[in-house]
Amino acid sequence: MRYFIAFAYNGKNYCGWQYQPHSPSVQETLNKALTTLLRTPIDVVGAGRTDTGVHARQMYAHFDIDTEINNTALTQKLNSFLPKDIVVYGFIPLHDDAHARFDATSRTYEYHIHTYKDAFDNEGSWYHFHPLDVARMNEAAQVLLQSTDFKCFSKAHTDVRTYNCKITQAQWELHGNKLVFTITADRFLRNMVRAIVGTLVNVGIGKITVDDVRTIIESRDRGHAGASVPAHGLYLTKVIYPYL
Amino acid sequence: MRYFIAFAYNGKNYCGWQYQPHSPSVQETLNKALTTLLRTPIDVVGAGRTDTGVHARQMYAHFDIDTEINNTALTQKLNSFLPKDIVVYGFIPLHDDAHARFDATSRTYEYHIHTYKDAFDNEGSWYHFHPLDVARMNEAAQVLLQSTDFKCFSKAHTDVRTYNCKITQAQWELHGNKLVFTITADRFLRNMVRAIVGTLVNVGIGKITVDDVRTIIESRDRGHAGASVPAHGLYLTKVIYPYL
Repeated sequence: MRYFIAFAYNGKNYCGWQYQPHSPSVQETLNKALTTLLRTPIDVVGAGRTDTGVHARQMYAHFDIDTEINNTALTQKLNSFLPKDIVVYGFIPLHDDAHARFDATSRTYEYHIHTYKDAFDNEGSWYHFHPLDVARMNEAAQVLLQSTDFKCFSKAHTDVRTYNCKITQAQWELHGNKLVFTITADRFLRNMVRAIVGTLVNVGIGKITVDDVRTIIESRDRGHAGASVPAHGLYLTKVIYPYL
Repeated sequence: MRYFIAFAYNGKNYCGWQYQPHSPSVQETLNKALTTLLRTPIDVVGAGRTDTGVHARQMYAHFDIDTEINNTALTQKLNSFLPKDIVVYGFIPLHDDAHARFDATSRTYEYHIHTYKDAFDNEGSWYHFHPLDVARMNEAAQVLLQSTDFKCFSKAHTDVRTYNCKITQAQWELHGNKLVFTITADRFLRNMVRAIVGTLVNVGIGKITVDDVRTIIESRDRGHAGASVPAHGLYLTKVIYPYL
């Protein structure tokens, strides 16, 4: 039987989602916990990779097991077993070819910035000292919705066939003292959200114009886009499946 | 001239407010920063001590200086100079005998508990796995308002003349998934709030009754009260002066 597991994690102590030989990953931590509690080797397939230090408020993975799972009991056991920074919400039984990565039709990320010093929010939000022109940044975000090829925001040497993404949402909102960028697309390239945010912040401080963003995207050259902003402000917040 | 400085701090990286020879304190960090920026030795007197790891969302200290302070400019400079976990709100010129500790007429603390696992809130809130009977805990909090001597909640060997405190507010409230205890008094004994919360949590899990709390207070014996809860859930949130 194939199950989806729904969970969240604070990325601070992990090298990201994906297994890596010498660093603790969320995938490895989940695999070990499930393997111990279910007493059979479990290998989860995630909805996507997140980089070192990036958080997930809603994440899914799938795995196969011969026996039926008692959702409430296993969720409770797993939450006791796992470290404090990974929280499991539950298990969903699905058809055998349901795939956490390939079947996801959209993913949403948020990036959190605070422009006023905050003693309590430095681990989950990026402190940007200079004021930002949010209206201008939202104009630049609109350019993303009109574009298709995002090679300029992708890490080099990634193993992808195309750099095309369909961005369906991209906007900045002020929540109290916090500036939150929300972006939704069918897929994201490696490092893409952090490079986009770095570029839009350059618009917000007046270093580049909205038109420059268009030129940067057309250039397909990562060197023209802004520097990547730090990982600790980035959250995967939503993954959509046709059947969930 | 005497000035009050208003500020907040995340207590995680400090041995508390008060100077200690071999550990970083908030007082020492502020003294060093002010001494450097004002180019004259500054020694701040705080509204009260906080223990290792305890936070302050509103804290005051006073100090003397011969020259006049430009509030906006110094606040900005100081915030750039100080680490991310201390935020200065501003400076208030006051009369020469204004005293940050002796003139404070009340102090308010909050204690934060989450009873559902939360990947993102473990540094600023205590995770208590078992469900708590909040109504019962609020009944027990009422007993505090009817009591005077709180020796049972005080650390031993503290240099105080009386253990009398006038508690004017003590209640538990549910804010989303977070259980917040708010307590206001004219003064607090060392470790008092954390010992009170530990005792009220014992009521919340049914280990002791509301009547037991009355008996514990009457015993004046710290050994009868509950264990102190961890520091990282505790916030000094308000200090009141007659002239501010």
